[in-house]
Formats: sequence, structure tokens, C-alpha cells
Amino acid sequence: MSSVEAAVRELASRCKAAAQVLAYSPGEQRNAALLRTAELLRSSKDKLLNANALDMERGQEHGLSSAMLDRLKLNDKRIEEMAVACEEVAALPDPIGEVIEEWTRPNGLRITKVRVPIGVVGIIYESRPNVTIDAASLCLKAGNACLLRGGSEAINSNIALADLMAEACRDAGLPDGTVEILRFTEREAVPAMARLDGYINLIVPRGGVGLIRAVTEQATVPVLKHDRGLTQIYVDATCDIPMAVKIVHNAKVQRPGVCNAVENLFVHSANVEALRAIAEDLLAAGVELRGCPTTCQLVENCKPATDEDWDTEYLDLILSIRLVDSIDEAMELIARHSSGLTEAIITDNEENAERFLREVDSACVYWNASTRFTDGGQFGLGAEIGISTAKIHARGPMSVRELTIYKYVVRGDGQVRE
Amino acid sequence: MSSVEAAVRELASRCKAAAQVLAYSPGEQRNAALLRTAELLRSSKDKLLNANALDMERGQEHGLSSAMLDRLKLNDKRIEEMAVACEEVAALPDPIGEVIEEWTRPNGLRITKVRVPIGVVGIIYESRPNVTIDAASLCLKAGNACLLRGGSEAINSNIALADLMAEACRDAGLPDGTVEILRFTEREAVPAMARLDGYINLIVPRGGVGLIRAVTEQATVPVLKHDRGLTQIYVDATCDIPMAVKIVHNAKVQRPGVCNAVENLFVHSANVEALRAIAEDLLAAGVELRGCPTTCQLVENCKPATDEDWDTEYLDLILSIRLVDSIDEAMELIARHSSGLTEAIITDNEENAERFLREVDSACVYWNASTRFTDGGQFGLGAEIGISTAKIHARGPMSVRELTIYKYVVRGDGQVRE
Repeated sequence: MSSVEAAVRELASRCKAAAQVLAYSPGEQRNAALLRTAELLRSSKDKLLNANALDMERGQEHGLSSAMLDRLKLNDKRIEEMAVACEEVAALPDPIGEVIEEWTRPNGLRITKVRVPIGVVGIIYESRPNVTIDAASLCLKAGNACLLRGGSEAINSNIALADLMAEACRDAGLPDGTVEILRFTEREAVPAMARLDGYINLIVPRGGVGLIRAVTEQATVPVLKHDRGLTQIYVDATCDIPMAVKIVHNAKVQRPGVCNAVENLFVHSANVEALRAIAEDLLAAGVELRGCPTTCQLVENCKPATDEDWDTEYLDLILSIRLVDSIDEAMELIARHSSGLTEAIITDNEENAERFLREVDSACVYWNASTRFTDGGQFGLGAEIGISTAKIHARGPMSVRELTIYKYVVRGDGQVRE
Repeated sequence: MSSVEAAVRELASRCKAAAQVLAYSPGEQRNAALLRTAELLRSSKDKLLNANALDMERGQEHGLSSAMLDRLKLNDKRIEEMAVACEEVAALPDPIGEVIEEWTRPNGLRITKVRVPIGVVGIIYESRPNVTIDAASLCLKAGNACLLRGGSEAINSNIALADLMAEACRDAGLPDGTVEILRFTEREAVPAMARLDGYINLIVPRGGVGLIRAVTEQATVPVLKHDRGLTQIYVDATCDIPMAVKIVHNAKVQRPGVCNAVENLFVHSANVEALRAIAEDLLAAGVELRGCPTTCQLVENCKPATDEDWDTEYLDLILSIRLVDSIDEAMELIARHSSGLTEAIITDNEENAERFLREVDSACVYWNASTRFTDGGQFGLGAEIGISTAKIHARGPMSVRELTIYKYVVRGDGQVRE
């Protein structure tokens, strides 16, 4: 075992010991730690800003882009947002101990399915230091210990934030190991974490496709992927055209750099009026349009789309548009290019809408609403640790409840199996 | 890509295409395929027995043990049991389309969390050919396509059974690819399956620790492990002693070769009477006892336990026994040696019982009942595809519902995100 592997294992075993105690800790105690974190964030601003200044300085030396530096930066407003997020998580209902189901067997055995924490959650993330607090607070609320591994460019900020949260946990009487962070930047630490089954129960990678692929390739610990989105909208043969314009505009323009922003638009060929209205609106908003040959004929200032475009997550003010002759063709294309996260239909035809909602296999399917609602907060689930593209455990927005599992508690009076 | 990898991918892509249709197939159609499978099993006995005879012959040539040959063997009774199992699965409620939760957001968005199939489930298993039908029927009931990979020693039996089920699916109008099986025995097929993310959504390995480790090491597809059990019972300071004797007897003797049979027994040192009564009963039943030094002093015919014994899943008429001075010591030892599957407390002290049920982190925790109830059928869940030792998605007995996931269906009237 290398020294990095040994160091990661040492931290993970501290988390594992903490998780055993956390599993039956009272909700009030976990909430007290969250509220104390908010207090310490507010009272430790100088310390946090100093740590962040070291990262910013090094980032400038290493020539990080201004967008990267902006993501890295802490300031009073961002620290206050983290504090508020902790308070909001504390205010969520406690998922632990919830009776999910309960029944009595003919032999008198009473079986209760009870919600419990997963155990130790490993979070591997990049760039923004607020993830340190956001992810750890959701894990803590759900009764999990967490082992954090942030990006090397934010190492000083992340350590300062994790240490602050560990202090808040101690103040609330929670065990050491509740929140741990890797204090070194060796890349080897990522596969080392991902192979610690027996210590870590779940790995949540947050970051680019490269990070997620590296974790998935190496992992023996279960991984819940949060990879790319390729959000698609189908505008049916008939619909409320101003509504279609408004929804597509929102889905593309309001925040183009996120996984629930639309990338592919399919429009029924009988609804050229909708196509023209949407295109006009988007061009006016500065969106670059890339279309199929017919779309290019019908819409001025539309570039021809390449084959690659239909599988490209632009994360930018660019949209691919294609005319289709039926809802079947639309659903076939959607299935082919989908990332399984978010798709929408805009129609006034209820039968088509219900068919689309039933047959399109994505985490979130919409009828006459913007795809931008795929978000834990917008769904009313609370803050989210990410949006899962997995088909097991949790699909779509993952919040506190999605960081739990269950156990069966069985009470008898001497039953034995025949 | 090797030819084995290409062949596995070809089959998996057939499954993937089928899964897209299965996802919204009516429950009646899936049930019809299950009932037709039962019919075909009964009417095709000769064909199945002939295929099985080839495997038995080769098994004898290869010198399989009589226990292995017995597991491999098909006969009228075992075929009838498979047919009945299919009928029982058909009779279970349809999980697909179930509304798990439904709520309306302040902006009027109506969000429905609906139960849907996982997609394509890969089953990698060893030895007993009935797993072919049992696993495939649970997958089908839950609307999943499945790709089967059985042990090489049962290849002819498994192919005959899978072909029969594929025929039943065709007869019921379900798509080709609903049930597929690997028709070759190259070991390379196991890692090839486990790395087909994009085609297979979940791998369920059923078999020995070696198989499960191999799959976990290689997989990029999510894996739900069903590995070893190390079931433990704690007999508290006070209890109904005849009940304790009856429960421990059942947990050890009724079927010692399974994962919910007890392997470690802890007895409170204030309850020597229970220890003696349990030991006397087990010795009379032919159980070999291996004890801590004090147990060896108190119980005649008890051998000293080695350190290794406490981590050994005997799967045999052998039991390790240790005296403890408190419930805390018992729970600490249980946590140290547990496989996380099944543990029980026998006590008449409700406070201790509830503490044990809360603090012991296993899939199934019992108070005054035999550990042998850890089983999908015994829990009333229906047949099981296995017993999961994972801490995500499904824990403990996995039946039909545990082979599903959900999607969010969102209905709006033009909502956009602010």
C-alpha cells in the first residue's frame, strides 16, 4: 500500500467509526451541528478569506482563466450563502428513523422498514469551494459521515471550510470523523478512495466527464454518476405558440451553462409557425441556431447542423433544431441522443403529452413547462448534492432523502422458520 | 474489441432495444408471458431433461462432486417448481406505473414520482439452472430486459430454459431481446458484461465470493452485491430460555448452508443458564461448538475458538460462542464481525431490545425471532433475486419492487424558471 493509500484509508476508517455513531444520533444533534456551522461561517470570514486568498494567488500564478478564478473565489456574499444553505438544510425534516412501511406476517412477525443513513459517503469534486459545505451538510443531515476530496486549486479554501464544519460537529457532540477532508492533492487519492469498499459505502463524483469516467473505471465502491445532460424539447403539431416561445426561451437562455438547459429542439413539420416564432425569439436573444436542411430553408440565419451537433452539450447560447414528421420520430430521436436526464413536450394534445410522459425514459419528463426545473430546490426536495444520471438508487435531483437507505426491523415472540 | 466482447455487446444492444418497449408494456402482457413460460415448462419437460442430461454427463466426466451434480440436476419436481414460481410472480401486483408520491409546487407544477423499470439487468450466476427462470421472471415482472450469464457447467440447461422463456415472451407479443442468454462459456464474457455501461443498467452477481469480487473489480456498470452472510445472535442477561434455545436451534440447525444461518453467538455472562441450555441442545443436534475460554470451561465438548473462527461463515453445523459482559460489548463484537446482513437479540428487556434494533447496522435486525426469516418469501415480498449486502438502492431481500427505479413526471401550463 502506498503512503497516499494508507493516508486515505486512515481517514476513511475514522469516517467509518463516526458513521456507526451518527447512524442513531438524534436529529436535533445533527441540526445543532448545521446551525453551529452557519455561526462559525459568519464569525470566521477573515480566516476563510485568507485561506481563499492563497488559492486565488496560486490560481493566478498557474494562469487559471478568469471564469475558473471566479468559481474559486470566496467573498462575504458567498460565505453568507453557505451559512444560509446550512440553516435551510437544518430546517428540513429529519429523514432518519422514518417508518417507510410496516406490516405483520401471518406468523405474527412485525416487520418495519426504517429509513437509515448509508454510512460513509465519499465526495470527489472540482473547483467551487462552496461544494465542501453544501455536500457535507446534506450528508450530515442524512446521518452520513463524509470524506471530501476537492480540487487541488481550492485546497486551502476547502480545508478551512471542512475544518470549520468539523469544529461545529465537535461543538455539537458528534464524533470525530463526521466530516473529513483529504489534505493532499496527489491524484492517486481518487482511485484510492474509489477502491475503499469496506470503508466507504458510496462515492458521489461531481465534476467533468473526465473525473467521472476516472472514478467509474477504478471504483469498487458503488458510484452514483452525475455526468452530462443533453436536454431536449419536442414541439408538437399543435400547441400554444406563445407558450412554446416562452418555454424554449427560458430553457435555452435563462442559464445556458447547466445540465437542464435545452440543447436539441425537435419541431413537428406541421407547426412551422411555432418554429419561426421560436427561431425569431432566440435569434433576437443572441442564440446561434444550427438546423437540419429544412430548418435552414425555413429560418434565416440558421447554420447547418453536423451529425456531431445532435450529441453535443453546448452549455452555451447555441441550439440544434430539427423538423420531424411525427411524435414517433421525435421520441426515437430523443431516445437516441438523450443523456437520460430531462426532456419536454410542448403540445395542447393531451393524448400525445401522456404518451410522451410515459414512453420517454428520462429522470424528469415535462409537459408544457421549462426543462430548467430539474433541480432539487425547484422540485421542493431541498438543496441537492447533484443530479443523478444513474438508473439505480436515486435518479434526477439527489437531496437528503436520496442519501439514505433502509433496514428491516423485525420484532417477534419466538418465531422460528418451519 | 474481441469477438467475445462484440458478441456480448450485440446481445446487450438487443436487450436495450427491448427495454425501451418493455418500460411501458401493460402488466397483463408481462403476466401473460410469465404464465406462458409456466405452460411451456410443463409441456417441454423432455426437451429440458435432454439438455440437462448433456450437462450432467459432462459434469460427471469432469468429476463434479455429488453435491454439485445434485445442484445441477433437473427433474420433474424441479421443473414443476419453476413453473409454479412463474405463476406466483405473475400473481404479484404490478409495480410499474405505481405513483410513489405526488405533489403540486407553489407555481402550479404538478410533480408525480412514478415507479419505472431499471432497464437492462445483467445476471451473472453459477450452478443451479433454476436461477435462469427465477431471475428472468422477476426481471420481466418489473419490466426489465435481462441478459443472463450462467455457469459453464449448466450451459445446455440454461440455454434451453432461456430459449423457452424467450418463446413465451414472443408468444405474448413482447419484443425480441426481452430475455437473452450468453451461449458461450468464455470467462472473458463476465468482464465484458460488467463494462457495458450504456447498454446494461445493473449487474446482479449471484455466486461465490470469487465471482462477486471479479465482477466488482471489473465493473463500470453498477453492481448490487450479494456476497457472504455472517449472521450473529446475542442472548441478553435475561430472556425466556426455552425461547432462546428454540430460536438458536432453528437459526443454526434448520438449514446450515445459507447466509441467514447463525455463525456467531454471544451470551451475556449473567445468563450462564441460557448458555448451558443452548449448548446442550445444539450438541444433541450434532453441532460442533467452538468457544471463548470461559465458554469452554462452562460447556463440555466445546473446542477453543481461534481468532479466525469469528470471521468464518461455516455454512455447516458449527457455531462460535463467546461470553460478553454487557450489551455494549456484544454490539461492538457484532459490528466488528458482521457482514451487514442479519443479526438478532434474544431478551425480555425491551429497552435493550430497542437499543439493539436501533444501533445494529444490518439489513435485517431481529428481536426474539430466528435469523432464518431473512428471505423475500418469508418477508412477504415474493420470490427474491437475491439478498443484497449493498448499502444503496436495495438492502436485504431483493424482489420485484427492488428491481425498479422511478422517474419524475411534471405537468405544467407554461411555467418557466425565474
